[in-house]
Amino acid sequence: MRRSRSKSVSKIRVAMVGGGIGGFIGEIHRMAMRLDNRYDLVAGALSSEPERSIRSAMELGLERPYGTWEELIEAEQGDIDCIAIVTPNDSHAAIATAALEAGYHVVLDKPMTRTLNEAVTLAELALQSTQMLALTYTYTGYPMIREMKSRIAGGEIGSLRAVSVSYRQGWLSSAIENEGQKQALWRTNPALCGAGALGDIGSHAEQLARFVTGHSIQSVRGDVHSVVGGRKVDDHATVQMKLSEGIIGDLIVSQVSTGERNNVEVKVYGEDGALTWSHGEPDVLALLKQDGTEHRFHCSVNRAPSGHPAGFVEAFANIYSDCANVMQGSDGMIIDAQEGLASMKFIHAVLQSQESQTWVEL
Amino acid sequence: MRRSRSKSVSKIRVAMVGGGIGGFIGEIHRMAMRLDNRYDLVAGALSSEPERSIRSAMELGLERPYGTWEELIEAEQGDIDCIAIVTPNDSHAAIATAALEAGYHVVLDKPMTRTLNEAVTLAELALQSTQMLALTYTYTGYPMIREMKSRIAGGEIGSLRAVSVSYRQGWLSSAIENEGQKQALWRTNPALCGAGALGDIGSHAEQLARFVTGHSIQSVRGDVHSVVGGRKVDDHATVQMKLSEGIIGDLIVSQVSTGERNNVEVKVYGEDGALTWSHGEPDVLALLKQDGTEHRFHCSVNRAPSGHPAGFVEAFANIYSDCANVMQGSDGMIIDAQEGLASMKFIHAVLQSQESQTWVEL
Amino acid sequence: MRRSRSKSVSKIRVAMVGGGIGGFIGEIHRMAMRLDNRYDLVAGALSSEPERSIRSAMELGLERPYGTWEELIEAEQGDIDCIAIVTPNDSHAAIATAALEAGYHVVLDKPMTRTLNEAVTLAELALQSTQMLALTYTYTGYPMIREMKSRIAGGEIGSLRAVSVSYRQGWLSSAIENEGQKQALWRTNPALCGAGALGDIGSHAEQLARFVTGHSIQSVRGDVHSVVGGRKVDDHATVQMKLSEGIIGDLIVSQVSTGERNNVEVKVYGEDGALTWSHGEPDVLALLKQDGTEHRFHCSVNRAPSGHPAGFVEAFANIYSDCANVMQGSDGMIIDAQEGLASMKFIHAVLQSQESQTWVEL
Amino acid sequence: MRRSRSKSVSKIRVAMVGGGIGGFIGEIHRMAMRLDNRYDLVAGALSSEPERSIRSAMELGLERPYGTWEELIEAEQGDIDCIAIVTPNDSHAAIATAALEAGYHVVLDKPMTRTLNEAVTLAELALQSTQMLALTYTYTGYPMIREMKSRIAGGEIGSLRAVSVSYRQGWLSSAIENEGQKQALWRTNPALCGAGALGDIGSHAEQLARFVTGHSIQSVRGDVHSVVGGRKVDDHATVQMKLSEGIIGDLIVSQVSTGERNNVEVKVYGEDGALTWSHGEPDVLALLKQDGTEHRFHCSVNRAPSGHPAGFVEAFANIYSDCANVMQGSDGMIIDAQEGLASMKFIHAVLQSQESQTWVEL
Repeated sequence: MRRSRSKSVSKIRVAMVGGGIGGFIGEIHRMAMRLDNRYDLVAGALSSEPERSIRSAMELGLERPYGTWEELIEAEQGDIDCIAIVTPNDSHAAIATAALEAGYHVVLDKPMTRTLNEAVTLAELALQSTQMLALTYTYTGYPMIREMKSRIAGGEIGSLRAVSVSYRQGWLSSAIENEGQKQALWRTNPALCGAGALGDIGSHAEQLARFVTGHSIQSVRGDVHSVVGGRKVDDHATVQMKLSEGIIGDLIVSQVSTGERNNVEVKVYGEDGALTWSHGEPDVLALLKQDGTEHRFHCSVNRAPSGHPAGFVEAFANIYSDCANVMQGSDGMIIDAQEGLASMKFIHAVLQSQESQTWVEL
Repeated sequence: MRRSRSKSVSKIRVAMVGGGIGGFIGEIHRMAMRLDNRYDLVAGALSSEPERSIRSAMELGLERPYGTWEELIEAEQGDIDCIAIVTPNDSHAAIATAALEAGYHVVLDKPMTRTLNEAVTLAELALQSTQMLALTYTYTGYPMIREMKSRIAGGEIGSLRAVSVSYRQGWLSSAIENEGQKQALWRTNPALCGAGALGDIGSHAEQLARFVTGHSIQSVRGDVHSVVGGRKVDDHATVQMKLSEGIIGDLIVSQVSTGERNNVEVKVYGEDGALTWSHGEPDVLALLKQDGTEHRFHCSVNRAPSGHPAGFVEAFANIYSDCANVMQGSDGMIIDAQEGLASMKFIHAVLQSQESQTWVEL
Repeated sequence: MRRSRSKSVSKIRVAMVGGGIGGFIGEIHRMAMRLDNRYDLVAGALSSEPERSIRSAMELGLERPYGTWEELIEAEQGDIDCIAIVTPNDSHAAIATAALEAGYHVVLDKPMTRTLNEAVTLAELALQSTQMLALTYTYTGYPMIREMKSRIAGGEIGSLRAVSVSYRQGWLSSAIENEGQKQALWRTNPALCGAGALGDIGSHAEQLARFVTGHSIQSVRGDVHSVVGGRKVDDHATVQMKLSEGIIGDLIVSQVSTGERNNVEVKVYGEDGALTWSHGEPDVLALLKQDGTEHRFHCSVNRAPSGHPAGFVEAFANIYSDCANVMQGSDGMIIDAQEGLASMKFIHAVLQSQESQTWVEL
Repeated sequence: MRRSRSKSVSKIRVAMVGGGIGGFIGEIHRMAMRLDNRYDLVAGALSSEPERSIRSAMELGLERPYGTWEELIEAEQGDIDCIAIVTPNDSHAAIATAALEAGYHVVLDKPMTRTLNEAVTLAELALQSTQMLALTYTYTGYPMIREMKSRIAGGEIGSLRAVSVSYRQGWLSSAIENEGQKQALWRTNPALCGAGALGDIGSHAEQLARFVTGHSIQSVRGDVHSVVGGRKVDDHATVQMKLSEGIIGDLIVSQVSTGERNNVEVKVYGEDGALTWSHGEPDVLALLKQDGTEHRFHCSVNRAPSGHPAGFVEAFANIYSDCANVMQGSDGMIIDAQEGLASMKFIHAVLQSQESQTWVEL
């Protein structure tokens, strides 16, 4: 009783720009797309060098390799639904703009752009576009970060007082950009990345502060450092923040904290308790109550039953799953260009405050 | 510069037996196959009911749905490389036997079979077969479990003294099999599962004890219980064990430990230190030394850089990745039918020891 | 306005037998007595060697040093209220008996005696005595162990199913008794200690199982080992247990688990949840519920406010505080000779079961 | 063989000012004195109300109660060695000055004084005095904090980059000072305490930053808040800091972090690794290395063997033990008036920086 091919479940047809073999985040995007089987990655312009771009795509087995993203965007109209952009920050604006204007949905790595001006323009375009522009703020893909947001919105810890976020890495503890480390090269080159740690991981941290509280950051005062000698971008910063409704914020971001691997912590304090989350135990959300009891909620909405740990790739896949929902017309939680713009304003304001040594409004 | 389709990277063509929509483990297998993009799941006989089997395959978008596994095995010869079997235990032996005999590679859920006799026969067949039979003992897919094995083999904790494993769940704390819960139904029906907790999760625990130590279990003395009234299989057991070279073992397995979600712990003690691992922190392996220092090694071989948590699905994908290696002729760490047979002997011996109230040799 | 001496707050006048300088537990008892200032340690026979006994007492500044405990017991009648006995196990029975018969209250280190026969006789005497005999089962002094008992008694986790206790140390991992280590010398000499790990720390573990559940141990089946070559007592054992009302028990005790410092864990499972405690975090009691939430209760009854950690010495002081309450006629939770006898029966039964290779009733 | 009283071991004779029954810290001091049996608390002026002062001393069984500290200081000259001062901050300067001038050693609660001016004067006096003035910065009594200092000084993590300290409590989350809570009353009254959270616990945090790094704080920029309406002192602050040799610092202090009990964390980052300590696990010091390994050192110098937890009272007793050493002419690690002055400068500078909204040098 062999049957003919079943009517294929409808998948999102997607092309990738950037993310050639050897990089880190491109493969994460591809795994995230595959995990829930809702995407067909069919085309790619995976590198800024045409030769390498095509070779990468062929090695990955993509059906339609391109030498440049411009070619891809022109050629694929009507054939694919979405373009995933995972290039260094300096090309985000141009590619995303072209993609949106050509009628593609866009999934875009954070930070949204290299400069604030680019971000303003792109956010404007996105607002007028009928297509989706979604940013991959990874941590919003963790179910317990969403649960944190939801419990706070539900009033579980009462009126908010303070939010404290920190994101510490140690991988840039020495000047590995001078040794040709590929990730370090572009992430410490202001012409490519814009800001350093503030852009790369500070954007995650500040977005988490806004995401879980549901409040905007109104002004900042940063103490910004380039710890490693000769580095051209910031690699360590502490930021004092004022959020809407008088909520006090503090943020620490560092890529020179030797020994830290990828330590993200979020703590929110309200009149009636606190909620805390740590990347080291992503399936747990802790609620601290004034009676001294700590309630630890364990994630129950992962792909395997509660008690089976999930991690980074699954969080990323949750973001892609929500994007698929939105592109297919149903509900999905995405981080849009307005939020991407808010991140860019934050980075800009912190750097300004470092220059002026004053509070800077966003 | 649109190119013609690139020469496709060679993928393993696979069919699945069992694992229809609604189950748990089938989808885990499918995600594990997809994650590293080395498999093409093209055919399936996903249920023991032909109608449902075909509907499930079509819903999943499989190219070639079948009503029965017999049809699939006959029809796909030459078209696929491997059959993944995720049915209840009672049909493992028949399907795996047919698949091996028809020349397919086999990926088979643990425990290997329902009865020890079936296991003996199947292991014999597997030994003579040129095809791979690999069992999905999930926990061997965790990198830090492999690291534990490797450090022990390398002598890091010296001559071994004791191994302690526990696997506690609470989901069968009440008689949910009487309320029609699908997973509970077959996992508490001896005609389908053979043993209860001992087969379902005890097999993981005992295999971990053997896997990380590199030693065999030679005799056991179990205290086996059916805690929930009316249940026909064991749901809680403690086992005293003797491993080769005089290593002392203890094992606790329970599915009625209310409040436990999926708590697996492995501790190995040697003359020079101890190594411990817990499923709650799968990316960490701890080494305890006599000077009171605890060294915590963090996984550095996941799909994302160290500090980005990985979990159950990635562990499962590691198993599939190794299977792909083996099927494609390179090195891979798989759990073979001999190890599957050892598990079946363990289960059998523990149940025997409960009857005889004595130590039973394996 | 200098005042004459205030009417002294009434303190318990106490003498110590054993516990000369250089030992471990004697000084712990003395710190525990001092912490809450309810005891005056005025006399002592601190060693079995008279010369050393007196020298030790003088070094400690005791008012009235004695060469032997017999002298002390005779001389101090009416002058002191209580005798604290911290000698090796073989002299417990004789000293405690003499002390009780002479009308003193007795605080006695566990295990109660060296042999079961001694324990039976002493328990009988204690039952008839009007004086207090209290055993220093340290772990019952931890507030969260008491909270565990209280919550279980209050039905918080419903009808009990299983209790799991483990107590692992590594300090006897090699034959340090042959190198003259003082603690190891008597704790591995059966003429002085009776049993080995079972008596020294197994008694703590089994008592915890009974204490927190409120149930008795009815039968045991032990797998008992002397891991270190030439050692004359047990140093590693696992025990399967049956408690009253069908509660299943398991116990692990080891002093050869290299790398473990003093790892005590207690887990109790009921129909409605689990309560767990670990010595590594003594101020925390965890409640696991079937919905996947873990509630961590933090101690709020230590000497400093919640959030200020307390430890072993404070737990010991809690025991002395309760003893003071009882001696002064108010309520106090003490572990009496009946419980001490139960421990001795446990040790005896486990050793018997090792010989007979069967379950042994207590 | 009853002997006459042994030559008493020489003890420090001490009087206490402040610390009447009902307070918190006075009893902690007394327990700390008793634990190691090196102090005789013989006199006291325990309250600012003479009646209550004498009653408290009598209830505690002190030999020589006084109505006022002035009387005590005059009367006890030659009879006692040391005065422990545990009054609210506003009287620290006067009492400590009088005590030093009268030739007593002084143990003084932190912060040293209420105002910076008082601190300058007292530090000057202490510098010229032959007597000891020691401040009870509790956290310096924890062995693993000392180990942290020692490992940093020994170069284990290389040249320092950053220090991060936080101290969070929640007990002042509502205006309990208006409900008559005694501790809250004086700790939120600027006339008695000077600063609020900054003085009470910020002084601990900033001192820890200096203590473990061995570096001074050179300038600060604080974001200081009174979160609870109507409160007259600060209750939440974040501080950006510059330490000597370019070390970057950040500090968070809060007494309105609902749900936090007493959460102190210290992290120090150097070129070669990081050392971290948390009050929740005071016996552990963690060393993070760039290879991803975390080494957890467990305290081995507590009063009981490694593996037996110690806590707040023992840390406090360590401080008193060091004070006894110093008073008896041997080596001891004490926090002196210069360090106390540094804390006061810190508090002052942070409050100034809040007014000026600029960095303020110390």
